[in-house]
Amino acid sequence: MGSSIGRLFRVTTFGESHGGGLGAVVEGCPPGVTIDLNSIQLDLDRRRPGQGELVSQRAEADKVAVLSGLFEGKSLGSPIALLVRNHDADPSAYADMRDKFRPSHADYTTEAKYGVRNWQGGGRASARETVARVAAGAIAKQVLFQLCGVEIVGWVEQVGPVIADIDSQQVSLADVEANAVRCPDGLKAKQMEALIQRVRAAGDTVGGVIGVVARGVPPGLGDPVFDKLDADLAKAMLSIPAAKGFGSGLGFASATMQGSEHNDAFVPGASPGDIQTDTNRSGGIQGGISNGMPILASVAFKPVSTVFMEQRTVQSDGEATTIQPRGRHDPCVVPRAVPIVEAMMAMVLCDHLLRHRGQCGDRR
Amino acid sequence: MGSSIGRLFRVTTFGESHGGGLGAVVEGCPPGVTIDLNSIQLDLDRRRPGQGELVSQRAEADKVAVLSGLFEGKSLGSPIALLVRNHDADPSAYADMRDKFRPSHADYTTEAKYGVRNWQGGGRASARETVARVAAGAIAKQVLFQLCGVEIVGWVEQVGPVIADIDSQQVSLADVEANAVRCPDGLKAKQMEALIQRVRAAGDTVGGVIGVVARGVPPGLGDPVFDKLDADLAKAMLSIPAAKGFGSGLGFASATMQGSEHNDAFVPGASPGDIQTDTNRSGGIQGGISNGMPILASVAFKPVSTVFMEQRTVQSDGEATTIQPRGRHDPCVVPRAVPIVEAMMAMVLCDHLLRHRGQCGDRR
Amino acid sequence: MGSSIGRLFRVTTFGESHGGGLGAVVEGCPPGVTIDLNSIQLDLDRRRPGQGELVSQRAEADKVAVLSGLFEGKSLGSPIALLVRNHDADPSAYADMRDKFRPSHADYTTEAKYGVRNWQGGGRASARETVARVAAGAIAKQVLFQLCGVEIVGWVEQVGPVIADIDSQQVSLADVEANAVRCPDGLKAKQMEALIQRVRAAGDTVGGVIGVVARGVPPGLGDPVFDKLDADLAKAMLSIPAAKGFGSGLGFASATMQGSEHNDAFVPGASPGDIQTDTNRSGGIQGGISNGMPILASVAFKPVSTVFMEQRTVQSDGEATTIQPRGRHDPCVVPRAVPIVEAMMAMVLCDHLLRHRGQCGDRR
Amino acid sequence: MGSSIGRLFRVTTFGESHGGGLGAVVEGCPPGVTIDLNSIQLDLDRRRPGQGELVSQRAEADKVAVLSGLFEGKSLGSPIALLVRNHDADPSAYADMRDKFRPSHADYTTEAKYGVRNWQGGGRASARETVARVAAGAIAKQVLFQLCGVEIVGWVEQVGPVIADIDSQQVSLADVEANAVRCPDGLKAKQMEALIQRVRAAGDTVGGVIGVVARGVPPGLGDPVFDKLDADLAKAMLSIPAAKGFGSGLGFASATMQGSEHNDAFVPGASPGDIQTDTNRSGGIQGGISNGMPILASVAFKPVSTVFMEQRTVQSDGEATTIQPRGRHDPCVVPRAVPIVEAMMAMVLCDHLLRHRGQCGDRR
Repeated sequence: MGSSIGRLFRVTTFGESHGGGLGAVVEGCPPGVTIDLNSIQLDLDRRRPGQGELVSQRAEADKVAVLSGLFEGKSLGSPIALLVRNHDADPSAYADMRDKFRPSHADYTTEAKYGVRNWQGGGRASARETVARVAAGAIAKQVLFQLCGVEIVGWVEQVGPVIADIDSQQVSLADVEANAVRCPDGLKAKQMEALIQRVRAAGDTVGGVIGVVARGVPPGLGDPVFDKLDADLAKAMLSIPAAKGFGSGLGFASATMQGSEHNDAFVPGASPGDIQTDTNRSGGIQGGISNGMPILASVAFKPVSTVFMEQRTVQSDGEATTIQPRGRHDPCVVPRAVPIVEAMMAMVLCDHLLRHRGQCGDRR
Repeated sequence: MGSSIGRLFRVTTFGESHGGGLGAVVEGCPPGVTIDLNSIQLDLDRRRPGQGELVSQRAEADKVAVLSGLFEGKSLGSPIALLVRNHDADPSAYADMRDKFRPSHADYTTEAKYGVRNWQGGGRASARETVARVAAGAIAKQVLFQLCGVEIVGWVEQVGPVIADIDSQQVSLADVEANAVRCPDGLKAKQMEALIQRVRAAGDTVGGVIGVVARGVPPGLGDPVFDKLDADLAKAMLSIPAAKGFGSGLGFASATMQGSEHNDAFVPGASPGDIQTDTNRSGGIQGGISNGMPILASVAFKPVSTVFMEQRTVQSDGEATTIQPRGRHDPCVVPRAVPIVEAMMAMVLCDHLLRHRGQCGDRR
Repeated sequence: MGSSIGRLFRVTTFGESHGGGLGAVVEGCPPGVTIDLNSIQLDLDRRRPGQGELVSQRAEADKVAVLSGLFEGKSLGSPIALLVRNHDADPSAYADMRDKFRPSHADYTTEAKYGVRNWQGGGRASARETVARVAAGAIAKQVLFQLCGVEIVGWVEQVGPVIADIDSQQVSLADVEANAVRCPDGLKAKQMEALIQRVRAAGDTVGGVIGVVARGVPPGLGDPVFDKLDADLAKAMLSIPAAKGFGSGLGFASATMQGSEHNDAFVPGASPGDIQTDTNRSGGIQGGISNGMPILASVAFKPVSTVFMEQRTVQSDGEATTIQPRGRHDPCVVPRAVPIVEAMMAMVLCDHLLRHRGQCGDRR
Repeated sequence: MGSSIGRLFRVTTFGESHGGGLGAVVEGCPPGVTIDLNSIQLDLDRRRPGQGELVSQRAEADKVAVLSGLFEGKSLGSPIALLVRNHDADPSAYADMRDKFRPSHADYTTEAKYGVRNWQGGGRASARETVARVAAGAIAKQVLFQLCGVEIVGWVEQVGPVIADIDSQQVSLADVEANAVRCPDGLKAKQMEALIQRVRAAGDTVGGVIGVVARGVPPGLGDPVFDKLDADLAKAMLSIPAAKGFGSGLGFASATMQGSEHNDAFVPGASPGDIQTDTNRSGGIQGGISNGMPILASVAFKPVSTVFMEQRTVQSDGEATTIQPRGRHDPCVVPRAVPIVEAMMAMVLCDHLLRHRGQCGDRR
């Protein structure tokens, strides 16, 4: 279990980093939605390794094949199966991992859970699994846009201690793609890039934070108790490899505030009868339900665990030893993780959009 | 939907803040577990309003009745239904809310979603719903303890800008209950208490952070992709009213670190063949699966939205107006939220324990 | 697990035959639906024991209390909790069951599964659990009627070898309630009644078949693969205690037919562009999806296992013994099971109605 | 939705009859189970068209590729993705179906539900979808056999009015495969074959019934209320294309019986403390839970809807017309459906085996 997410718009992924390939089955897609394969490929290309010095050098074309669910360019309402083949897998780089557990990786926990493990790579825990998420998320984005004009943009907010200053109201995909770190604050982008090059040269890695906004989300998505919109977003984001923190709206910053500073006043909207908030500290969600303002969230990533230095660890038999990783890895995961964060946002919103109209109907 | 959580150990809650009462149905409880009703009541008492000046003055006895699922003190494996009646509801305090939306509350989003609303209180969005969670969580705690000796302790880590210093390895329930703010750092507890009294006097409220640890969790719980143990914890925690952020292990602090600082080295454990980590920056979870070390998490809460000052808002018809809340509310939610955070931790761990032995069997 | 059914309109039941009571939590009810409590009570009264000589003499008022989810007579969209207290439980009749397994009852399998059992009655396996289904089903009926005018009628089709002749197009609730066996074919009803009296006098029991129709179901409900509308109906019906068979449309009779006899020709409907079928051998479902014609199904029930004669069995320790049941039981379950069959039909249709508009929108 | 089945052992299928291929993703497979690909292929070959005059002449090699989830011949516990490519699709045979609805097929209901349809074949409603079920079921069979020695055998019980006489205790795969109709009663098999040839020559089709037994199922599988073992079997079986009826144990025959005839007496088993039943009219399930005796069920199939004669129907615009199907179709579906019925039995048992040990642990 654990390879599926969503209740009505449901994505199931499969595949290991070293095996036949990675794929996703998207169930519950509304019928009649025009699905542009180029848009899927575009997001896959943003996530793809080998884009430059800031990311892993594994060379994967990551071309997606659609096996089912589309007909004459439109969704049929049946499961859409997506497949990306593996090509440049290099199991030799992992020989050492057969009997040694890489620190802070999932090698040990996988062995502890299943008693068996494909040691030729990270298996299901590999970040390569996210190729399937990005493909599925690209479909969710198209559904959201065609059904209600939702637009999702993610960006790099922080790398190590370098924090950018972004206007989430205005930030666009073009701004994000303007540089290799995907940080729309040009000055900070340069500092981030320099930092990543520095840690890379040292064989080290560094963490970071991604911000994301969804604009045009109608009010009413999300459920009041366990399936709050931000609860489902939190789960979706923490399911991304290396994610360690989630904030809805102001996130942890709200803990330091007083109610009189944090509350968003309601004010009349543009058209008569419309309602909006003056500020958006709540990040577009109140009581777990969208209020029509932009949905804002942030996701913290730990530094990649594969550091190219000797580290203490143990063997499968419990004996102490050391390990010196080889292979191709990202010195900082956040630039490539931007489309993954967007994909998870899209899946959650799409699922809640369908759930909402299931229970409450199309009242707009 | 949205009122259920968990796949095998599944909790469904029902009830509004002003109505017949609150309850939970716990499905999938392992049979033959001794369930102590006093333990349930103890946790309900920790969550109960009216405990002192730091929390809401609503006077509810919150006595729990068990309607099914137990026989001669043991779980039958059938659904355990728990019911807590409402007594001290005061709808008159809410008369103003019939047509006005309280800022940063769920009044507007509930109306936007459902087109109908029980305006005599917060309905399902009321923090009173959490009484059912605490009762169900107290059952999960007993299952976890009896099946594998797991112990869960939560505490107040931060109130506004005041941050405590807690040793998560050692902290005990007695330490937490030693003062009214539930902060085991006595010095900081006093500062927190003073701060809460100050904002209360000003008719204002303040946010905070709760830390939580689960000790004795066996390795192997959690699934590698979407249902990572920390992903499900993130969802569970963000589903608590007023929660705005979640951290697994070091949380957002890990974003600023380098891999060489963050990695936890594996070292031989106490018994031959045992494996543990030297440090626990990962918070007991790697690749979404528990590694046998203590599970550590933190949850950020925004300041309560009910501030006793005049605020701008709009009426149902979209006209601008102002609102001046009345009623009984907590100046700071975190002291009472400690047992709620523990309850959510317990439910998630219990569900994953059953899921793990379902797929992988009882190998220990 | 196993106490919940439905994905969007989801019913969870709880309670044992001898305990605090029986109840249901209905999640996902569309908001704003007028819920008439008298209609719920009416169906409970149809299912109630003590209605005459044909059924069990247990005297339960079976008055339903609604604990949540309604406000000013309308559904809020939040969980609707329903509770029926137990009053006339008589555990003394079950003393013999503590150590002996009643033949063809669930005593042994419950013990084998859970290792613990409430021997003071049938526990969750008791037909008394269905009181919660009938209450929840009565809500589903009201949702279906108000959202799309669906009307559901069940009837006794067969008792032992006596088979009635019913026009499923025309049969009404009044026809069904015209006699105590709930068989709208008056002549056959008399024969059924005589048969039931005869087996009752002999301390024996007899099986039967219930037919059910849902009229006014829009085309498009159901999913093409595993969640076919008739697959979900089959599950719902086989979940009723003592149910052993299910037929969709002509059911097993279709196995003997040739395609040229079984196919339903499409013909133009009443309004231009409308489509219907000339005959309805498919029972309103083709490829698992409703076609707009009446949904027709049948459910076979075995004879009640409690026969008042000495029977061979074994004790918990495996030793051979005999048992002579006491207590109050139905000589034939089908008259009281009619509202249960209707309730299951209503829950399944209601769930699929919401699921359909979730994925495909409100196109009507 | 609707393309997934199972809660812990969960199978999701994808693909249309005319498209890139058919596939299944099997989630939740226990780790470390030896998966023999030849066994999967063997069942696919039993289901494959083109095996003789009794079945469809479509020539598909139906070779299965495993894309993920296995390593060195064993299951990893991760999703097992299975893919069977389409080769001999002949959309030209379906040109007439673009605008005309075939009687008793899913063309109209698919259009009514989704508003869009891949008219080049039956889409998801095609029996070709079952290739994915058979592949997934072959994995479930191996899990069941390795974890608890369960053996599953299906056979043709009835074709049209010809009913076989089978000893479900003894029947073996070899008996079933001894002739082309898969009926182990040799005399009746010849009559069935003659009947199928006759209806085929007439351009007609005929229905039938399949029986199935699972031997070696431990007591305790199944849940007492909605997820009764036979309720889940009923759903699984009714989800097979053309299935119209399901019987558990004696099925509809039990409706005509009296309790004294139907009850199965408990008797001491082979080893001290063991319990079994003297007869097995209950079909191995009491109160929805397995009792350790063989699980017995039957599934009724309607005659295939594609009859090669002119039939009345309507066009998409509602105008009356006629249709004369072409293409390659089975005159009788039951011989090829035997491995499908076995596959569905295997999936349901495997899921309940994992669910049982999840809640109740491995007590055997």
